[in-house]
Amino acid sequence: MTTAHGGKTAGAEHAPAPVVFFLSDSTGITAETLGNTLLTQFPGQRLERRTIPFITTEEQAREVVAVIDRLAAAGPRPIVFSTAVSQDVRAILSRSSGHFVDLFGAHIAQLEHALHATASGEPGKAHGVGDAIRYQSRMTAVEYAIEHDDGQSIRALGRADLILIAPSRCGKTPTAMYLALQHGILAANFPLIEEDFARRELPEPLRPFIHKCFGLISQPVRLSQVRQERRPGTTYASMAQCSYELRNAEEMYRFNRVPYVNSASMSVEEISATILQRMQL
Amino acid sequence: MTTAHGGKTAGAEHAPAPVVFFLSDSTGITAETLGNTLLTQFPGQRLERRTIPFITTEEQAREVVAVIDRLAAAGPRPIVFSTAVSQDVRAILSRSSGHFVDLFGAHIAQLEHALHATASGEPGKAHGVGDAIRYQSRMTAVEYAIEHDDGQSIRALGRADLILIAPSRCGKTPTAMYLALQHGILAANFPLIEEDFARRELPEPLRPFIHKCFGLISQPVRLSQVRQERRPGTTYASMAQCSYELRNAEEMYRFNRVPYVNSASMSVEEISATILQRMQL
Repeated sequence: MTTAHGGKTAGAEHAPAPVVFFLSDSTGITAETLGNTLLTQFPGQRLERRTIPFITTEEQAREVVAVIDRLAAAGPRPIVFSTAVSQDVRAILSRSSGHFVDLFGAHIAQLEHALHATASGEPGKAHGVGDAIRYQSRMTAVEYAIEHDDGQSIRALGRADLILIAPSRCGKTPTAMYLALQHGILAANFPLIEEDFARRELPEPLRPFIHKCFGLISQPVRLSQVRQERRPGTTYASMAQCSYELRNAEEMYRFNRVPYVNSASMSVEEISATILQRMQL
Repeated sequence: MTTAHGGKTAGAEHAPAPVVFFLSDSTGITAETLGNTLLTQFPGQRLERRTIPFITTEEQAREVVAVIDRLAAAGPRPIVFSTAVSQDVRAILSRSSGHFVDLFGAHIAQLEHALHATASGEPGKAHGVGDAIRYQSRMTAVEYAIEHDDGQSIRALGRADLILIAPSRCGKTPTAMYLALQHGILAANFPLIEEDFARRELPEPLRPFIHKCFGLISQPVRLSQVRQERRPGTTYASMAQCSYELRNAEEMYRFNRVPYVNSASMSVEEISATILQRMQL
């Protein structure tokens, strides 16, 4: 039942890297998210990561503890992030030989005090279906994003919460997909091409929806690199063409007062957080 | 700079709901993830949620504190989840009138001890580009998932890490997208249709890749509901058809020893965590 993913195994030539466990009675996503966030504070460390989700019984918890204890006996003491909710499961996990970091227990008492309420003690539901309407809106948004990827379909732009516009390969597609999947936002994306730069107005199909548009630009060198990977040696991928398109796109955004961001060194998560904030979605 | 998203505003007929803040010097994703996980333990609570990302300066921190203090003076004391890393920013945020839940500070000392190292103190990078190769693999996987959605393209199935198979509307597409976006997994998905059930073998194009296949089924009632929304009154959406396809799909999975899961009451996150574990990806 131990599954290693999301991390690299230490090379055989080194001493074994400490193993970091993300343990959960649910998907393990919360444990991975905060655990990895904390670990980014220690950039030099070689670590091996293992996520073990769905630990719901005391027997499963004891099996996991046996794995941790074996590792602790043979090498460096593992680090154990846990978001397990059940008191019984937590009690067992906390008695392993690893460094036990209880992401759940450390904060729940404070919240009980703040909310004048008692925690339900039910296994984690944060990444379950939860609010069915909200969940369904995320699934609908994923379909919408696929259908409206790269200007494939301009019908139903009126339904969009957001229309991402940019020259090819500035990050429209993964950003639209992230906003759809994580936030249920109906995100269309629309490519700006050479012909669009003959004038500074937005392309015709976008004009009725100017208030929904958000632009992306990149850096010419970065964009050219990305395009070279896709179509090496083409005009499309040349520095001159990339510079031209980016300069014109930025001018178009400014002229039409479309908010925009330079995505060159940003992740989809960072671009998305910026868009959510700027567009007040 | 305050942006409300991800939550519902309290109706005017009620007393104001406590406001929950997710504060971060980065995207706010980690604060939202753990904060919301903890709040699922208090299911009866009406709460209003506000995420404020990218708080990097002391001045920005003081502006946020002013907002929190105003709310605290007028109504229930806000709850403040923070993953801010900077000591100066954290010190300011911690002095607001809200209940301050320091998701970062609470655990970092324990990790410094476990790793015999000092935290870098750099602003959160957990959701930045980080490892450029890993990041690029996620972006490539999103494109791959779009190209290989719903059996659209069977070329390059050999490149797939995973092929999701199922009758229409069992959750293949959003699951493939989630695995691509979050885990960089090259996930193709392939629909099983009426003709495929004439025999128990897998459809021809899948046979060389049987070890990469993972099946989904659902419950007939649930599947029929979902299909009715898409194509009301059709045979496709009828209970009889849904039962028939699900029964045959399950038989096909068993006959070919393809691992599978019933996705009827599972979220994409839960389906994905199950697949990662079962397929050891």
